[in-house]
Amino acid sequence: MFISFEGIDGSGKSTQAKRLARALAQRGIEIVLTREPGGSPGAEEIRRLLVEGGSERWSPETELLLFTAARRDHLERLIRPALARGAWVVTDRFADSTRVYQGAARGEQRALVEELHRLMIGLDPDLTFVIDIAPEVSLQRGQARGSPEDRFEGMGLDFQHRLRDGFRALARAEPQRIRLIDGSGSEDEVAARVLAGLP
Amino acid sequence: MFISFEGIDGSGKSTQAKRLARALAQRGIEIVLTREPGGSPGAEEIRRLLVEGGSERWSPETELLLFTAARRDHLERLIRPALARGAWVVTDRFADSTRVYQGAARGEQRALVEELHRLMIGLDPDLTFVIDIAPEVSLQRGQARGSPEDRFEGMGLDFQHRLRDGFRALARAEPQRIRLIDGSGSEDEVAARVLAGLP
Repeated sequence: MFISFEGIDGSGKSTQAKRLARALAQRGIEIVLTREPGGSPGAEEIRRLLVEGGSERWSPETELLLFTAARRDHLERLIRPALARGAWVVTDRFADSTRVYQGAARGEQRALVEELHRLMIGLDPDLTFVIDIAPEVSLQRGQARGSPEDRFEGMGLDFQHRLRDGFRALARAEPQRIRLIDGSGSEDEVAARVLAGLP
Repeated sequence: MFISFEGIDGSGKSTQAKRLARALAQRGIEIVLTREPGGSPGAEEIRRLLVEGGSERWSPETELLLFTAARRDHLERLIRPALARGAWVVTDRFADSTRVYQGAARGEQRALVEELHRLMIGLDPDLTFVIDIAPEVSLQRGQARGSPEDRFEGMGLDFQHRLRDGFRALARAEPQRIRLIDGSGSEDEVAARVLAGLP
C-alpha cells in the first residue's frame, strides 16, 4: 500500500507521517518512510536546488520539471522496489503537492501539471491524507523552525491560502483516495483522526 | 537568428561554435555564445548533476527531465531575451542533443522526447550545424581533455556510434534546418565549411 501525506508548510504532516509509519510498523508491516522532494540520493540532490534560494530562482515551469525529475528518481529507486517486495510506503508529499503548488496556486498551469504527471510518473498513492490547517497557524509553525529551506514559506500568507484551497479542492474531487484531516488540536488528536481514516 | 552546434563528444563543435561567434561578431552582429546543458546560472547548477557521476546515476527518463529543466531555464533567462533584443544566439548543443542522446541512442524513448519538447520547450534553432566525425577520433579527443565531465564519454565506443548515427538521421530528416558538416581535417578547414553553410 502506498500512502501520502499532504498539506501546506507547517501543517504537521511530517510529524503525522512519522507517527502513522510507527503505528503501522507496530502491526508488523514493513514500512518505508520517505519524503518529497527527495527520498532517494539523486532526488535529494535535486531537492537542494528546489527548496533553497529566492522565490524567483526558478520559473514555475522549470520548477515543475525539477520536481518531476526528483519524483521519477524517487519512484524508480525507492518507491517501486519497496512496493514490489510487499512493503508499505508512507511519503511526506507526492504528486498532489505539485498539483497544488505548481498547478493551482502559481498561475494556471494545471493542465500542464497533469500532462507531465501522466507522461513521466503515472502513479498516484492508494490513500492520501491532507492535513488541513489555517495558514496563519501553519506559517507560524514553519517560520519557527528557522530552516534554510524556506523558499515556499517566503511566498507569503496569500499564497498559503491559495495552497490550502487547492488541497481542499483536490480532496473534494477525489474523495475515494483523499481524506481531509482536521489538523487543529494536539499531535495525539490529529494522529487519532489519521488512524481512523485508514481503510 | 538562433544557431546551434551539435555532434558527439570531441567532435570539435565547441571550438567551431566559438569560431563562428567570433566571425559573426566581426560582421557587427551582437552575438550571445552559450552552451547546454547550462548557459544560465540555474541551468549550470543542473548541469553539474547531469555531467558528473557514474553512467547509471540517472535513468534515461530522469535524465531527460533534468535536461529539459535546464533547457527551459536557459531559454527563459538567456536565449529568448537575447533574440528579443535582436542579438544572434550561438549555442553549443540544444534540443537535438536530447533527441539523439536520450531519444535515439538510449532505449526507444524518442516519442517521449518529442512530447516533452513540444510541451515544455517548443522552440528549435533556425539553423543547426552537426559536426560529423568518426567516434574513434572523437573519443580520443574527448578523453585527452581529462575533464571530470566524462559521464557520457564513459558509455563506450558502441554508444558513440549510435549517437553519430542519430545525428546523421536527424540531418537527413530536417535538411532545411540542419547542415551536416564534415568534421575531419584542421580547425580552419572545418570552420570554412561552417561559414559556407550560412544562408
